[in-house]
Amino acid sequence: MFDRYRDGLEGELRAAISAPQADSVQVDPPLAFYTMLQYHMGWADERGRPLAVPMAQGKALRPTLCLFACEALNEDWGVALPAASALEFIHNFSLIHDDIQDGDLERRHRPTVWSLWGQPMALMAGNAMRQIADITAMGLAERGVPEEKALRASFLLTSGYLEMTKGQCMDLVFEGSLDIRLEDYLAMISWKTGALIRCGMEMGALVASDQTDFVQAFAHCGSFLGLAFQIRDDVLGTWGDEATTGKAVGNDIRRRKKTFPIVYALQVAGDPARRKLVDAYSKSELDDRDADDVLTVLEELNVAEYAQEVTSQRADRALGELDCVPLSSWARREIEDLVDFLTTRQY
Amino acid sequence: MFDRYRDGLEGELRAAISAPQADSVQVDPPLAFYTMLQYHMGWADERGRPLAVPMAQGKALRPTLCLFACEALNEDWGVALPAASALEFIHNFSLIHDDIQDGDLERRHRPTVWSLWGQPMALMAGNAMRQIADITAMGLAERGVPEEKALRASFLLTSGYLEMTKGQCMDLVFEGSLDIRLEDYLAMISWKTGALIRCGMEMGALVASDQTDFVQAFAHCGSFLGLAFQIRDDVLGTWGDEATTGKAVGNDIRRRKKTFPIVYALQVAGDPARRKLVDAYSKSELDDRDADDVLTVLEELNVAEYAQEVTSQRADRALGELDCVPLSSWARREIEDLVDFLTTRQY
Repeated sequence: MFDRYRDGLEGELRAAISAPQADSVQVDPPLAFYTMLQYHMGWADERGRPLAVPMAQGKALRPTLCLFACEALNEDWGVALPAASALEFIHNFSLIHDDIQDGDLERRHRPTVWSLWGQPMALMAGNAMRQIADITAMGLAERGVPEEKALRASFLLTSGYLEMTKGQCMDLVFEGSLDIRLEDYLAMISWKTGALIRCGMEMGALVASDQTDFVQAFAHCGSFLGLAFQIRDDVLGTWGDEATTGKAVGNDIRRRKKTFPIVYALQVAGDPARRKLVDAYSKSELDDRDADDVLTVLEELNVAEYAQEVTSQRADRALGELDCVPLSSWARREIEDLVDFLTTRQY
Repeated sequence: MFDRYRDGLEGELRAAISAPQADSVQVDPPLAFYTMLQYHMGWADERGRPLAVPMAQGKALRPTLCLFACEALNEDWGVALPAASALEFIHNFSLIHDDIQDGDLERRHRPTVWSLWGQPMALMAGNAMRQIADITAMGLAERGVPEEKALRASFLLTSGYLEMTKGQCMDLVFEGSLDIRLEDYLAMISWKTGALIRCGMEMGALVASDQTDFVQAFAHCGSFLGLAFQIRDDVLGTWGDEATTGKAVGNDIRRRKKTFPIVYALQVAGDPARRKLVDAYSKSELDDRDADDVLTVLEELNVAEYAQEVTSQRADRALGELDCVPLSSWARREIEDLVDFLTTRQY
């Protein structure tokens, strides 16, 4: 599914971030402004020069699902491009701010925006990317989407992002706690990760169809896909293969992240296994040995199997939500393939 | 003008930031989430308890001008409240992020959001405030504003904020330079400060009138008012009275800020006066004596008089822009009083 929309999406994204041709002001900032954004998107180097070989982009899961929902409901997917691009910009905006928050020096094997331009400028760059997302989304009306729906799409985008922000706050609060109920963890990721994925499918369906039940079906499908996606992400962060994920095994553990495996293990482990987990996560820094101890506990508790089971359940429910929509065999196959990919992916 | 809309505005703002009554999740973050926002707005303490005496709010210049533009064009100003509230939220969002950037511990005599909840959480709080601004603005359609205009207003708001972000970036770049042309400085403040003020007047006029030339007149009026407002702000930051501004004389100088007086002085000073300015501003920290030296140079160059002259010119042009609009005598008097206040204000 990803290849299907890649070129169309990239064209739309690039058009949205280009410096105005003639700026009356003789100083550098307007240029640096767009440079930061183009750099982050992987199209330019830190001086704004186009890369001979553009960086590999991420999967663009959110926009892809948005465009798919539109096409699956028999509308030209180009109509949903402004909504899809907006999602990708919001996603990237949040990555720029995440890197500031986490103090991460590298992303996609390149220095992060804040590490090159400093925190204050990177904060601005992120905020600007956020605005460009909104302006892009407003392009729906220009593609012939009725104004009422264009407004509704903007509302969905904004509300989706607000939920994502809530989820991020909750994630921060969880950092300081070892006593997290699994259902609260699932609520957190449904906000942090699920909201934008749901929003993407809902917007895509909205611009394609007037049938509320179809739009809702895609929205709910997105919610479940979001959960499946994040739990798989947590699994890859814990047991992923470095060659394919770019992260070493136990990476999330060494960073003391509260992921699905850890939250679940803390909930079901009896002593002394729970004690081991608590001891490791109470340290200010975890070394390889600590990480190995945690991994051993997770293995004893069959956490990986349970995580995979929950992932599959959520993925099945995602597919089930679309039962009420009369999908063509093409669309049915595409979404089944995607669900299959999301639940088994190695990267 | 400020008193006229104060209560209506505050009601609208408070309604927009209230925690959902029933949140299924048993943990604290959704609560802390709204607490941070209510705290920043001056309505609650850091634990979310309503303040017995709410904090004095700022002037709310942007929303006030928005509501005035609407009323001056003979529309019920309540119609423009969603747009006005959105501006106030955007303004406050930028204050939350500014405090992070500048590392400021206090705002309005209270600890800043980041100093209480930490930087990552404050970053999120700012972003959330930004979303709430958008959601609030979308309420225009519910007040009977045609969807086309509601979309246009959202576009103006987003573009206005994008310009403000550009201006903030430019301001950051200026921090590292002593060679700033006055016209570039004026371009910077027209973005940093002017954009949202223009946007406010334009949105207010837009919802009230179908006449493009009236809407444009208010927009241009806002641009000039923005310049006048910021130059006066720079003057107060340099020579303001501590009792009324809350800042000591020379405050902006000690912080090595590139304000209108400094940029102008650097441009017109001959040696050795220019040398003195450059020496002072090249230090990593300025003490009171350095600040006094700078103030002496500014006095010799009659910078205060020149700044006041430019402020008045811009204010006159702001009024002149409205000549094409048939204002009632009430509205004419109100805007003249406001211009008078902006050019002579002590706080």
